[in-house]
Amino acid sequence: MAQDLVIGIDVGGQTTKCGIVDARGTVLSQTVIRSDETDDVVVFIASLAEALNRIISEAGVEGRIRGIGVGAPNGNYYTGTIEYAPNLKWGGAKVLPFARLLSEQMNGIPVSLTNDANAAAVGEMTYGAARGMKNFIMITLGTGVGSGIVINGEVVYGHDGFAGELGHTCAVRHNGRACGCGKSGCLEAYASATGVARTAREWLEMTDEPSSLRSLDRISSKDVYDAAKEGDKLALKIFEYTGRILGEKFADFIEFSAPEAIVLFGGLARSREFLEAPIRQAMDANVLPLWRGKVKLVFSQLKESDAAILGASALAWEL
Amino acid sequence: MAQDLVIGIDVGGQTTKCGIVDARGTVLSQTVIRSDETDDVVVFIASLAEALNRIISEAGVEGRIRGIGVGAPNGNYYTGTIEYAPNLKWGGAKVLPFARLLSEQMNGIPVSLTNDANAAAVGEMTYGAARGMKNFIMITLGTGVGSGIVINGEVVYGHDGFAGELGHTCAVRHNGRACGCGKSGCLEAYASATGVARTAREWLEMTDEPSSLRSLDRISSKDVYDAAKEGDKLALKIFEYTGRILGEKFADFIEFSAPEAIVLFGGLARSREFLEAPIRQAMDANVLPLWRGKVKLVFSQLKESDAAILGASALAWEL
Repeated sequence: MAQDLVIGIDVGGQTTKCGIVDARGTVLSQTVIRSDETDDVVVFIASLAEALNRIISEAGVEGRIRGIGVGAPNGNYYTGTIEYAPNLKWGGAKVLPFARLLSEQMNGIPVSLTNDANAAAVGEMTYGAARGMKNFIMITLGTGVGSGIVINGEVVYGHDGFAGELGHTCAVRHNGRACGCGKSGCLEAYASATGVARTAREWLEMTDEPSSLRSLDRISSKDVYDAAKEGDKLALKIFEYTGRILGEKFADFIEFSAPEAIVLFGGLARSREFLEAPIRQAMDANVLPLWRGKVKLVFSQLKESDAAILGASALAWEL
Repeated sequence: MAQDLVIGIDVGGQTTKCGIVDARGTVLSQTVIRSDETDDVVVFIASLAEALNRIISEAGVEGRIRGIGVGAPNGNYYTGTIEYAPNLKWGGAKVLPFARLLSEQMNGIPVSLTNDANAAAVGEMTYGAARGMKNFIMITLGTGVGSGIVINGEVVYGHDGFAGELGHTCAVRHNGRACGCGKSGCLEAYASATGVARTAREWLEMTDEPSSLRSLDRISSKDVYDAAKEGDKLALKIFEYTGRILGEKFADFIEFSAPEAIVLFGGLARSREFLEAPIRQAMDANVLPLWRGKVKLVFSQLKESDAAILGASALAWEL
């Protein structure tokens, strides 16, 4: 029988999503397993292979899997390794030959691996908002800020496979917030879901401004969104600030690779109604005149649960 | 006879350099004409064609020119046009079909055009310090700060042909210096030859620090270099400051495209002895740990007078 299907796997800190995908981008079957129940990658890969074999068998598609694509934090496309990934319980302080180990467990089905944001970019290009685009920058606004850069229709991996760490470019040069990476002032420390919550906590402490957020014990970016929805002025200001910081950095990114569009994806991108205008405004105010008003700002339309699997699966077609 | 030679042309604000180049990168014959004696591009191109025909005839290589490569400010590789180039007397506020006009004047010899920094990058890749490199960023430190970005062995032009304006990314976010482009705080306003002179003038005014520069009427970056050579403390501090600003931005650029090297070229790059250490230090302090100490910082070895011609000529081989 033809090998006409692929598997897409999105490895996250808490959960790993897997799905069988056909050439049209339909997810035929999917499942989710925990990523954080072991600190041994071999144990994790055994449970992943078991889950894959189960959905293959349930869908009755044995022998039809052509390749497996994996999106994972700190994934290196060139080597198929996951390198020093602090967010993965079994991944910190090590270089793990993830693609090779998984392929071995899956009877030699070839495995391609890249970081999660690059996988998302491939997904948008193949099935989503960036279809037909040869030059765009994908920014994932989740717990962190990730990026996948596409130039001339290809994901940029750079000399060592790690290109596209735009979440760690500098947003605030002096006295910036400490970032998880060890640096200060990174875009991620401000414009991620955790960054938004942090802005809220800082501003509540530093000012006396009334806000419905004051009544909460712990504040998440979702709380800030809900408050903004209710017209809470402080919450609205937080999104304006977040959008401005994003737009300022996007101007720099545009001056680097002159993309047709910047595509936003991830949990925080769902706050489009509050982020879009300040991003657009700051982007245009900070970019060279020749690009003002010309670079598209696109919010992903892919269902988030599918997008990660689709993005990773798109990698597998190239195998 | 075989068409085994090309012509390289470097169009600058004051002068335009042209040379006939063979496949080994030897400049067989060259000449320089003024760029600023007319505000009519047609008149300029007529004088350029005359100069080219003269060196072709002097070298006795009629019929052997396979193509012409042009590096010019605001040159667009996709369209062969020079667009709104304020530094060219005949180029402001217009989109000029430079490649087509020159080809017509040169009996249909094909002409390829790109901006000057991209041409320099191609030159370094073909004949210079970046030979064998597939991923590097060329930074030209001259009157302005230009850049040419190479990814997977190809110059990045982006969606519209204008990618690589790293001199106009933001170095100082708030209350930054006005830049010639209309924005404020651009890298170019600090780290160009004019930026260095401006730092000197500002610091002399703002402080009482003794310096041999105080005795000068007008200060150029060369004066600051000469003073630093003599051990002048203020001049040394100016280079430290300039190097730090460059290194901080280089960290951002590395996080974008993960290059093997950053290659520095241009008049100000000759101050290597004062710039290299602070650039290196700031670059490593501001980049993600995975790149610390790993990205090469290379100073161009090409003779500047040849490099511009060689860079532009390298374009012509692809025609």
